[in-house]
Amino acid sequence: MKIQVGVSNRHIHLTKEAYQILCGDKELEELRPINQPGMFVTTDIFTIKTDKAEIPKVRLLGPLRDYNQIEISRTDAYKLGLNPPVRTSGDVEGSSPITIIGPNGELHLDEGCIIADRHIHVTEDMKKFYHLEGKNKVNVLVKGEKGGIMFNVDLKVSEEAYFEMHIDTDDANAFMLKQGDIVEIIEDK
Amino acid sequence: MKIQVGVSNRHIHLTKEAYQILCGDKELEELRPINQPGMFVTTDIFTIKTDKAEIPKVRLLGPLRDYNQIEISRTDAYKLGLNPPVRTSGDVEGSSPITIIGPNGELHLDEGCIIADRHIHVTEDMKKFYHLEGKNKVNVLVKGEKGGIMFNVDLKVSEEAYFEMHIDTDDANAFMLKQGDIVEIIEDK
Repeated sequence: MKIQVGVSNRHIHLTKEAYQILCGDKELEELRPINQPGMFVTTDIFTIKTDKAEIPKVRLLGPLRDYNQIEISRTDAYKLGLNPPVRTSGDVEGSSPITIIGPNGELHLDEGCIIADRHIHVTEDMKKFYHLEGKNKVNVLVKGEKGGIMFNVDLKVSEEAYFEMHIDTDDANAFMLKQGDIVEIIEDK
Repeated sequence: MKIQVGVSNRHIHLTKEAYQILCGDKELEELRPINQPGMFVTTDIFTIKTDKAEIPKVRLLGPLRDYNQIEISRTDAYKLGLNPPVRTSGDVEGSSPITIIGPNGELHLDEGCIIADRHIHVTEDMKKFYHLEGKNKVNVLVKGEKGGIMFNVDLKVSEEAYFEMHIDTDDANAFMLKQGDIVEIIEDK
């Protein structure tokens, strides 16, 4: 079963309160939509910072959420001196602390920095259609020069979803994948 | 069949002539040995550079060789604006151009920058011992949260070898592996 790849670069999700601290009373502005329904890249970029280092130009995704979350790769984590857990989006309890710097102010978070797990966006109907009912994780086959199999790819169900596999830049670069490449779901786990 | 992982950060191999251009008449100095017999980390670090960006503090490995080779990750390649081929060590023909900056001078290479393939160092005797005779590539199983299988792992035979699998930082970070971790050869390909 074929599926398209979306590569997630490091990015940020914010609450309304956090956004106000970082940007003041500005309205959230859409730069361009992403494939997942309702979601978009905003015009806002921030710097993320630890005692060890900082990374500039980290993009905010919209809309605003009810939690703050900073998704980075393990490569970024080494640079920042962090050891964030691999988590599904929204599961930020006990994750790594980080500071975000915006045009209007700075925000230190005691938790919120994660490495996003490999996941596939699906609806319940798609799970039925693709015979994935009752499955929470799948394996994914990647062909090519640095091919292989990714285990533990989470099936992330939402009411609306564009059928797509999201991986971070470490997975993309290790397997030589880029946005829009096609891979294959091969078995459940 | 278990095997130990060695993670290769970006690094450089140089000819005697190239070393002299970059460092002058200095002798090569060993900082510490690496696991492969006769090889060592030198005290020399260089900056690698393209029109787009530069990366400082790239370590020279010794001893000197009869070719120049700069091994980087795909993450580095994006930063530098390069698209280097995935190659086995020494196979640099037609690979990416890059400039090296040393304390004594600069050296522009028309080719030499590669992404090193995933490989396992073995002797012919080890191949017999581990029942890998006649095989050039194997698959390697990685357990853990971001586990999976790596295809196309090259069996690199030399007269002397420490039995070890070498991967770059992209593979290490994608699969959450670090130096000294144990993985498993599972089948030939």
